[in-house]
Amino acid sequence: MPQLRQNPITKDWVIIATERARRPHEFAKKAEDRPTLPSYSERCPFCPGNEQMTPPETMRLERDGQWQIRVVPNKFSALSREGEIDRQAKGLQRTANGIGYHEVVVETPDHGRNLALLSEDDVERVVQSYKARYIEIAKDPRVLHVTIFKNHGKDAGTSLEHPHSQIIATPVIPPNVRGRMEEALRFYDENGYCLFCQVMQEEMEDGTRIVHQTPHFVCLVPYASLSPFAAWVFPRRHMASFSEIQPEEMRDLAGALRVVLGKLYYGLGDPDYNFIIRTSPCENRYSRHYHWYLSLIPRLTKVAGFELGSGMYINVTLPEANAEFLRGVALPEAAATQESR
Amino acid sequence: MPQLRQNPITKDWVIIATERARRPHEFAKKAEDRPTLPSYSERCPFCPGNEQMTPPETMRLERDGQWQIRVVPNKFSALSREGEIDRQAKGLQRTANGIGYHEVVVETPDHGRNLALLSEDDVERVVQSYKARYIEIAKDPRVLHVTIFKNHGKDAGTSLEHPHSQIIATPVIPPNVRGRMEEALRFYDENGYCLFCQVMQEEMEDGTRIVHQTPHFVCLVPYASLSPFAAWVFPRRHMASFSEIQPEEMRDLAGALRVVLGKLYYGLGDPDYNFIIRTSPCENRYSRHYHWYLSLIPRLTKVAGFELGSGMYINVTLPEANAEFLRGVALPEAAATQESR
Repeated sequence: MPQLRQNPITKDWVIIATERARRPHEFAKKAEDRPTLPSYSERCPFCPGNEQMTPPETMRLERDGQWQIRVVPNKFSALSREGEIDRQAKGLQRTANGIGYHEVVVETPDHGRNLALLSEDDVERVVQSYKARYIEIAKDPRVLHVTIFKNHGKDAGTSLEHPHSQIIATPVIPPNVRGRMEEALRFYDENGYCLFCQVMQEEMEDGTRIVHQTPHFVCLVPYASLSPFAAWVFPRRHMASFSEIQPEEMRDLAGALRVVLGKLYYGLGDPDYNFIIRTSPCENRYSRHYHWYLSLIPRLTKVAGFELGSGMYINVTLPEANAEFLRGVALPEAAATQESR
Repeated sequence: MPQLRQNPITKDWVIIATERARRPHEFAKKAEDRPTLPSYSERCPFCPGNEQMTPPETMRLERDGQWQIRVVPNKFSALSREGEIDRQAKGLQRTANGIGYHEVVVETPDHGRNLALLSEDDVERVVQSYKARYIEIAKDPRVLHVTIFKNHGKDAGTSLEHPHSQIIATPVIPPNVRGRMEEALRFYDENGYCLFCQVMQEEMEDGTRIVHQTPHFVCLVPYASLSPFAAWVFPRRHMASFSEIQPEEMRDLAGALRVVLGKLYYGLGDPDYNFIIRTSPCENRYSRHYHWYLSLIPRLTKVAGFELGSGMYINVTLPEANAEFLRGVALPEAAATQESR
């Protein structure tokens, strides 16, 4: 019998269709479909030596006199940094000019180096750059929300293979954030404590969907996971805004990310994925009812008409089985411990 | 300067990123990527002669003593018809057993015959089968909502190439329906008339996004369209539920669908697409504030981390340019008029 499960954070229902269950290895990417990337590509705008191919840097982190991280405005920016917010209404039409930020975080100078395989030091720098840029961008009063995300692989929507993440700051609060904020406030009103802290608490007591734990983070497969091997990474400490993350927590998040991405890499053959840092709107930095977290979404299945139409998803795997599988994926020694090249 | 536009039905903002604008022909599928399908495939469960490969029919429409439409339960049904609704709550977890319907509408006996190229008579039968099955399924008191949709092509999530649509009836109201119902009620409360009727009215006065009009339907590109060449098909008459469609309107919808799908087929080289009939929940059949419509979504771009994370979309084309292009696509004589094979 299939099951309906509700995501407590969005109240969305998902269909867990066990009749269609597929085994984990059926999702693994075949070796022949995995491109071997060179460590340098002449025409790549993110490779060392090609710095003039991007707009000027907004940030740089160095190591041994060489850049390790570059943050640059997106050359094909979806939003414009220049200008004032100008809203227009005409009948039902609501329009604003597209003010905002769209930046790219080049995660490593090495064209072929997968984020999952970077050293903990290097992933920590990526997290540090997210925070630094968030804080800088959020100072702009035109910005209401900052989305930090990564597209890995073609099915995840990336066109450039050099490892990078993106930051988009918008002058409106995106619908997925607004919806979560509303549900979280409703819960807080009714119970007097944070919904997300409670989700984490219940998941740790249950244990069946936990993938990995660190001193500051809990990685788990959601009870009502929309798609195979999706995971949430929650900070244990209540924080509404990602910008509140502290140095020790950044280091720890880097470690947690490396483990979870490493488990996808080694267990499922480097699948395409997206991750998103779901942080509060800028003005709700100290919210008691919202709690930031990272959503990791492997792109192993296609979104079809039912999902687009209804907003409901059909997950052909069992979240508990996903978690068990991921727990069981062993990482090579070098990946499991801190690596300093 | 990019633009932000708000969808009046969902209140979701979309980024119209004109800087990245691509020309219509850049979206067209290349001839070599378009498979030529045989009119019969031995192993296809939807081809004539293979009827025993599907579960028993729930409906059949014939022509000249042969079936023209078959509706069958999905062999890998996401939901189960048997059993009682059994809801469980444990802490934050909400679970129900997966009761519902999941049926397949085989649109034609011809394996290789694209829906866009069927005769008007044949498309009318498809629409008739949707209505007949909706009415039958909605009699079941366990069903709260019925989603009717089509996945055309691999990027739209289909695994079987024989032309077919699907019907999924759920014991919960899907989030995308709930959200639209809430916004529509809010609008009605404030104004005393239907939001959707007003959208149509304003679009017809403006005219720049209209693609095609028939006596009973208006086809247009939404002002805040999420993706290139997406279109809405609205019934002119106020109806909350698709099940209220009358025979003359079904005939007319078949004609409208053939034109719009034909314009995609001839103008963009048969792109993959989904369409969804966005109808009211069953119990809101006569709602004054909701209005059913059909959403047509060509799958020409990938959904990436920003979209998954924020719920906001970046549309790299201008809706007015989409509409102008589609208006200009000429259909061959045979497709433009009624065709009786």
